[in-house]
Amino acid sequence: MEDSPQRALQGLGSFPWYVGGTQVLGLACVVITGVWMGSYHGGYAWDGSGQEFNVHPLCMVLGLVFLYGDAILVYRVFRNESKRNVKILHAVLHLLALIISIVGIVAVFDFHNHNKIPNMYSLHSWCGMLTFVLFCVQWLMGLGFFLFPGTLMALRSWYLPLHVFFGLAMLAMSLATCLLGISEKLFFSIQHTYSHFVPEGILGNMLGLLLVAFGILVGYVVTREDFRRPPHPEEEALSVHFKTLTEGGGSPTSP
Amino acid sequence: MEDSPQRALQGLGSFPWYVGGTQVLGLACVVITGVWMGSYHGGYAWDGSGQEFNVHPLCMVLGLVFLYGDAILVYRVFRNESKRNVKILHAVLHLLALIISIVGIVAVFDFHNHNKIPNMYSLHSWCGMLTFVLFCVQWLMGLGFFLFPGTLMALRSWYLPLHVFFGLAMLAMSLATCLLGISEKLFFSIQHTYSHFVPEGILGNMLGLLLVAFGILVGYVVTREDFRRPPHPEEEALSVHFKTLTEGGGSPTSP
Repeated sequence: MEDSPQRALQGLGSFPWYVGGTQVLGLACVVITGVWMGSYHGGYAWDGSGQEFNVHPLCMVLGLVFLYGDAILVYRVFRNESKRNVKILHAVLHLLALIISIVGIVAVFDFHNHNKIPNMYSLHSWCGMLTFVLFCVQWLMGLGFFLFPGTLMALRSWYLPLHVFFGLAMLAMSLATCLLGISEKLFFSIQHTYSHFVPEGILGNMLGLLLVAFGILVGYVVTREDFRRPPHPEEEALSVHFKTLTEGGGSPTSP
Repeated sequence: MEDSPQRALQGLGSFPWYVGGTQVLGLACVVITGVWMGSYHGGYAWDGSGQEFNVHPLCMVLGLVFLYGDAILVYRVFRNESKRNVKILHAVLHLLALIISIVGIVAVFDFHNHNKIPNMYSLHSWCGMLTFVLFCVQWLMGLGFFLFPGTLMALRSWYLPLHVFFGLAMLAMSLATCLLGISEKLFFSIQHTYSHFVPEGILGNMLGLLLVAFGILVGYVVTREDFRRPPHPEEEALSVHFKTLTEGGGSPTSP
């Protein structure tokens, strides 16, 4: 496919709409999760009750879906900012996502322990824990490879495509885990009325579809060729900050 | 990242192992689904009973996971065959996946109708039906754009990245739907013992993780830069078959 300036310009004309779409979908997911737990399940608390459980879905959707997605999008949205600043923003958003998701995970373990409910038996919990552990590993590896000044450029270039691939794969895993969580919650709460298309069931299902739409739109914006961050001449100079003296020039390929 | 012949060669050295890995994981998923339904739920039949339901998970994992994944992989595996033959194989594998998944969907609707269970109320069914409808649309569009001789090359080039992106997105949706199905089946079958880590629960959870691993490995093989199909000189000549006289030369970018 040709990558002419005209084509690139055409593509970028629609870019704000796509990014706007991700934000509308992502915020809708957070708000619907919040309203679902608030209206149908009595709101929020930190006392081992069902209201403490309610903190879990809200934090996970806010952290490992919305903020995670936005952290991925910063390389496209801030396409004219210096690479170093965008990297730091990417790391900070992921750190926020990490902290909020830890609060969410502690909430559900605490709720289970208070109510003598076993932990980690369901497919939701297995997928969720796997995603969370991989997310932590990826965050630490990102820090070591891309923000630690001493890392060899050759190592960065080797790791970058893996970081990008697993970043998107983990967003997909995170979304799949959310779908499992919604389904579990609906079967626990409205098992006998779910099949009668009650409002809570439809709300949960709609939330699931919105999460899928968010994931697809973020994935599309990040992988679409003419939305890619253009190479900036000044990045060659900036990348000198990170280079060691042992290897040649050139910053790693833009994610 | 440099795309030197040496690097390409290094990459291809590991290629058969990755492809072998996808086949081991994919077959393991099909076999475990088959054994799960066979050993724990009484095997298979077509009489409206629970055994007819058992046809559903087996067909969906065989069709919309294993065959779907393999249909995507053919462009990498048959990298030295003519593009036209590989396109036809891609379409045929997807057609097989489509037929098998229709059998699986009919099985579950038939089972529900025989047993007066409502259809299409769960998140699993919503995600599954969405994935299936999009899969049908994508198959028909693939046929029209890439195998119908009269389609303009410009249209093919426009559609190709969308076809590739949605192909992978739908594989992810298909896998997420399987996870939802596994979770539902476990909550219906072993709701009161699932939390005691009974063998069926662990088997279902393991199947879920294997499906995730299959999806990640297929996604990795398909998107890894140095596994891409190299441009073949003879494809320029072959693509003439499909060209109309209204536009310039060049075959569309290899997916």
